[in-house]
Amino acid sequence: MTSCHRGAKGLSRAERVAIFGGSHGNEMSGVTLVKLWLENGVEIRRRGVEVTPFIANPRAVETCTRYIDSDLNRAFTTENLRAPHCEDLPYEVRRAQEINQIFGPKGSQDAYDVIFDLHNTTSNMGGTVILESTQDDFNLQMVHYIQSAIAPASCSVLVNDHPVLKYATTRSVAKHALGLEVGPQPQGVVRGDILEIMRKILKHALDFIELFNGGMEFPPCTVDVYRVSERVDYPRDECGNISGLVHPDLQDRDWEPLNPGEPIFQMFDGRTMLYEGDSTVYPTFINEAAYYEKRQAFVTTRKDQLESSKELLHQTSINRRL
Amino acid sequence: MTSCHRGAKGLSRAERVAIFGGSHGNEMSGVTLVKLWLENGVEIRRRGVEVTPFIANPRAVETCTRYIDSDLNRAFTTENLRAPHCEDLPYEVRRAQEINQIFGPKGSQDAYDVIFDLHNTTSNMGGTVILESTQDDFNLQMVHYIQSAIAPASCSVLVNDHPVLKYATTRSVAKHALGLEVGPQPQGVVRGDILEIMRKILKHALDFIELFNGGMEFPPCTVDVYRVSERVDYPRDECGNISGLVHPDLQDRDWEPLNPGEPIFQMFDGRTMLYEGDSTVYPTFINEAAYYEKRQAFVTTRKDQLESSKELLHQTSINRRL
Ligand SMILES: [Zn+2]
Ligand SMILES: [Zn+2]
Repeated sequence: MTSCHRGAKGLSRAERVAIFGGSHGNEMSGVTLVKLWLENGVEIRRRGVEVTPFIANPRAVETCTRYIDSDLNRAFTTENLRAPHCEDLPYEVRRAQEINQIFGPKGSQDAYDVIFDLHNTTSNMGGTVILESTQDDFNLQMVHYIQSAIAPASCSVLVNDHPVLKYATTRSVAKHALGLEVGPQPQGVVRGDILEIMRKILKHALDFIELFNGGMEFPPCTVDVYRVSERVDYPRDECGNISGLVHPDLQDRDWEPLNPGEPIFQMFDGRTMLYEGDSTVYPTFINEAAYYEKRQAFVTTRKDQLESSKELLHQTSINRRL
Repeated sequence: MTSCHRGAKGLSRAERVAIFGGSHGNEMSGVTLVKLWLENGVEIRRRGVEVTPFIANPRAVETCTRYIDSDLNRAFTTENLRAPHCEDLPYEVRRAQEINQIFGPKGSQDAYDVIFDLHNTTSNMGGTVILESTQDDFNLQMVHYIQSAIAPASCSVLVNDHPVLKYATTRSVAKHALGLEVGPQPQGVVRGDILEIMRKILKHALDFIELFNGGMEFPPCTVDVYRVSERVDYPRDECGNISGLVHPDLQDRDWEPLNPGEPIFQMFDGRTMLYEGDSTVYPTFINEAAYYEKRQAFVTTRKDQLESSKELLHQTSINRRL
């Protein structure tokens, strides 16, 4: 999708940027920040870019639940976006169509350049940027910039381009889609420390866009990422009921190596279930509240390095150079 | 209420005991433990006592929400329990009536002797027993026993007999009402460490009942408790919207002293709000997710010492002695 904007001439400026809070209505850092910025946007103003804060699922925010009828952050499938209007469409499908109309259409030249989608997790993931592609030089340079700017604090990069586990996110409407996932924070709670991490990542992200639009050139870079590998469900009995919990040795150890033979579940009958993979993985989204219903205790990831294909500069800068 | 069972002859045995999980459907330690014990109750079996595990709000458990129509753990008012049956009674009022019928009637001789009501909080409260009265020798001896048995781990005792802030709990149906409140744990999540704390407190509580019923005599005792003093709301703007968050210096500091002049809220406009009370208090339920809707950022408590009025022994033992 980005390939048509790229090539010898570089990328266009990222002139239209949106910040989504409340894609999940009970993830309070994004809800809180977007509400603040809707009242006073000074903090997110940058030269040469229009930044739009936006509450993605206002009804879910109002009731402080993840969603009303179905998960908005899974709703942006072609099928949903093309579904004919009718009374009994789930609320989030109708909302996805509205969002697609305002910020898309998804996959088109008219779509917004960048959407930051702000999420919280109950998992101990710290500050994380989620990317949906290994091929997006703009995003790679952005996370590289964020990681340098935020040091010595860290910002993990999770890439979900998994053929099965990738899903149709709210942010996927934009040309460049970025999820910000910060935890641990319970649903329905605003924690100051977690809010600050999200705020800082976003600050550096917007700074990057301003610099890029202003003509700064970014040399080729390499980014350490975690790539989604496998979904691991809770252990279950023959009726499908959960029969064990995340092992205390694994709880809160997001991004730490998990080796074959190490404990992953404490069974209610006292047994310990061990990891049976054949090599070291890096679990994340460990014991995320919202993923019980998705039958996911954690996802495993594998470490990878992504390289931007070349230096990043935008069209105008190239023209100036010629 | 307990006074009629007491007197020179001591207390009756505590022969009927119930353990409630899921009074709030998204507080998963109690839900998990009660479901386990409904399948296999060996762990909670004790000589001379019938222990009944019970899911208090099954519909809320099914949807993993706090409640369906209204908070079950506020529903046990005389008015609700006497409300005539009709179609549009909130689900939790109907459920309160059912529970009152099975385990009560509240305030009567027929009521269960003891109800343990299992709760989780997103606050960093650790293992806590909540009492509703300063006058219940049986409960005081029980928490004294638990605190000794669980050491060096600690089990805080919160007493809510506040004229305004006390509410009509699910457990209030029993002659002896005890809330077990363990945190921090996000709603909808089962953490192994939190589950273990709850399990241990309950184990010792049941051991105590077995010993008491078996005739053990308990000498007079003193218990350090925290008594509910004041509810503190989030700061709000003129429209009633929350205008600041729990200050990072206060977050997670449940039970620690808060002195006048120390920070309590970080305002979104950058200011810090200080505690303006006139003496040291001990905040708890700090930043509990479920209390945003109740306009409560935390409650303050004051330290107190409660003394059991005399040694505790049950009727039969006294008769044996005479
Ligand atoms: Zn989310
Ligand atoms: Zn509760």
